[in-house]
Amino acid sequence: MKAAVISVGSELVSGELTDTNAAWLSRELAGIGIPTLRHFCVGDDEEVLAETLTRAARAVELVVVTGGIGPTPDDITRRAAARAAGVELALDRGALAHIEELFASWGREMSENNRVQAFFPEGSEVIENPRGTAAGFRMPLARAQVIVMPGVPAEMKLMWAANVRPRLAQSVSGAVVTGSVDCFGRGESDITRELVDLMAPGRNPAVGDTAEDAIIRVRIRAAARNPAEGRRMVEADKAEIRRRLGDIVFGEDGQTLQGAVVEALTASGKTLAVAESCTGGLIAAAVTDVPGASACFLEGITAYSNEAKVRLLGVAPQLIERHGAVSEEVAAAMAEGVRARAGADFALSSTGIAGPSGGTPEKPVGTVYVAAASAETTVTRGLRLRGDRATVRDRSVKHALNLLRLGPLARK
Amino acid sequence: MKAAVISVGSELVSGELTDTNAAWLSRELAGIGIPTLRHFCVGDDEEVLAETLTRAARAVELVVVTGGIGPTPDDITRRAAARAAGVELALDRGALAHIEELFASWGREMSENNRVQAFFPEGSEVIENPRGTAAGFRMPLARAQVIVMPGVPAEMKLMWAANVRPRLAQSVSGAVVTGSVDCFGRGESDITRELVDLMAPGRNPAVGDTAEDAIIRVRIRAAARNPAEGRRMVEADKAEIRRRLGDIVFGEDGQTLQGAVVEALTASGKTLAVAESCTGGLIAAAVTDVPGASACFLEGITAYSNEAKVRLLGVAPQLIERHGAVSEEVAAAMAEGVRARAGADFALSSTGIAGPSGGTPEKPVGTVYVAAASAETTVTRGLRLRGDRATVRDRSVKHALNLLRLGPLARK
Repeated sequence: MKAAVISVGSELVSGELTDTNAAWLSRELAGIGIPTLRHFCVGDDEEVLAETLTRAARAVELVVVTGGIGPTPDDITRRAAARAAGVELALDRGALAHIEELFASWGREMSENNRVQAFFPEGSEVIENPRGTAAGFRMPLARAQVIVMPGVPAEMKLMWAANVRPRLAQSVSGAVVTGSVDCFGRGESDITRELVDLMAPGRNPAVGDTAEDAIIRVRIRAAARNPAEGRRMVEADKAEIRRRLGDIVFGEDGQTLQGAVVEALTASGKTLAVAESCTGGLIAAAVTDVPGASACFLEGITAYSNEAKVRLLGVAPQLIERHGAVSEEVAAAMAEGVRARAGADFALSSTGIAGPSGGTPEKPVGTVYVAAASAETTVTRGLRLRGDRATVRDRSVKHALNLLRLGPLARK
Repeated sequence: MKAAVISVGSELVSGELTDTNAAWLSRELAGIGIPTLRHFCVGDDEEVLAETLTRAARAVELVVVTGGIGPTPDDITRRAAARAAGVELALDRGALAHIEELFASWGREMSENNRVQAFFPEGSEVIENPRGTAAGFRMPLARAQVIVMPGVPAEMKLMWAANVRPRLAQSVSGAVVTGSVDCFGRGESDITRELVDLMAPGRNPAVGDTAEDAIIRVRIRAAARNPAEGRRMVEADKAEIRRRLGDIVFGEDGQTLQGAVVEALTASGKTLAVAESCTGGLIAAAVTDVPGASACFLEGITAYSNEAKVRLLGVAPQLIERHGAVSEEVAAAMAEGVRARAGADFALSSTGIAGPSGGTPEKPVGTVYVAAASAETTVTRGLRLRGDRATVRDRSVKHALNLLRLGPLARK
């Protein structure tokens, strides 16, 4: 089975929004053994979409469409699919009841517009939307199966995981088992050089990698006769990859750095406090993003001004005067200060220049110091990061978490 | 003139890389008055690309292709374009000399592979690459002009700006001007109901909307004889949309809620402090995401435990005992506490149950209180949010920022 992905939306084809659904879905499809041959992106034009659907359905066996199933007149996917199949739209009473229930639960009146979301091409099967009013549907078209989902990425991903992926995975013969080994701290080309034999084209399991925001995930996909065999193959590759890559590996199967840190803290019953300057709350936000983080996370202080660093964290004013607020010394004092005041086992801190302004020849934009403290030791790391403000802040958070993971937390 | 954009690369269609060229080019094309009707993304397959080129060239007058013009065998765009046009590839001596010069200037030997980069479809015109060895080309195909550029975004953008955009802009009459009115606080269908006449199909300017993470952007696109006329048309629609939607409008042209808040604070020389529980640093992170936020943002406290709320924010322990940590009263006390201690003009706070666990029948997951305080007043808002942990936290941040925007900050 081969797939095509169609993204619908004038805001996509005009470039106002960059489509990320097609790439995401192609990765997911690859994960269950279905290669994608083409992406199409079209505007809110019924005729163009109907024609694109017809062509795609002649070329491949699976056509996945996202977008254009909202309640407004420019949501044309339902009509375009009906037109391509030469059928009418028909009311689905179950879908209508679901929309009515949602509005009732929100205490809001349902508008007439929303009724159109309960109409689907005749012969199609409704796919429930676990979160919103936009139900999806699947229908046959030429020799293909067409699957339509919402365009909003979060809604689409929920629907995919709950109601689309499982059935598709079953329909592919044999078992495809996937996994990943998740790394931080080295470049993609360094990592792939270590794994070049595993990444050889045609090898089974297939090994590849994706890099996103400095997290490298080495992906493993095993085609096997059954799930148990597939899992054994994936586990064997994971062990080999871990052995070769060493301590840059922080987790498996899509783990996050903060997830790895919270897991290690919780497992050992230890606590964490955070003091931030340039990351402005992002380290605390990352840690508390993990469900159950309250078991280990005590408090976070975002101290932007020097005055706040002194008053809230107990940093000595002379230290700031002597070394500057962006310095290894101040990073260490911030971590030690918040650790002592919070009574935490560990603490993390950041201070730096995220840009776009504020840089000097000596300390250019991207100069960041992070520190990790325990009762026994404080380790610091100086970074020279490239990229825009968001990138500098993101990488600072990751280096801070990684410093704790490899330093005080590893030695606990 | 209307355009289609084709992105070539197996790493794109497999989802390993997300294509950003198509959206970028469509924005650029819109800027010179050329609307894009379709995007296509295909792998490194000569036959599929040749067929896609042929179809695109029948549908529109301009086909812009990126990718597949490197030196390796899987770079198939030159061959595919020749195949689509029914011509052979021919050596361009000027292009060859340019490649040889580049290698000489790098002090590296030119491989035989790189010679293929000097071959182009007969009848095409070479487009110089200001930076690399991959020259582009333009050629006629059916009723269309085809323009081929490198896939690497930085190289493509240089070539576009230097050697493609200027000539295209000259050939086009008219201009397309876009803008948006950015809203928070009401549902998408509520908003579109107010604007149904403006959103009528075929109207110029075209008005549509996109919703992402509860931010609704009403998008305006005007086709005009010249940029000045287009801007006037967009401004007139913006004014009308603002008039109808009232205070749910927080900005224009892709503004963020935190951007609007920081702008208002900075303009009036006021300062902000933040006290967070369930949002765990995300309010501070959102505010400090805005470049220049240090002018108004003093400090943020993430106080997860009751003990921290008492020690760091001065919340009275009896208040927590009487009403619970997740309560309107504690939210107000947190905001007032951090405001007083930081000496800030304004303060924001959050306390709630982000889930997935921690809910009770009385206070289910999604129960959140936010507060905004000034010297004169404290306003609070109780929320019952739906969705997963990330959604509850995200919406809490937005409601907190919006409470400040519409409450104390509006009355300043």
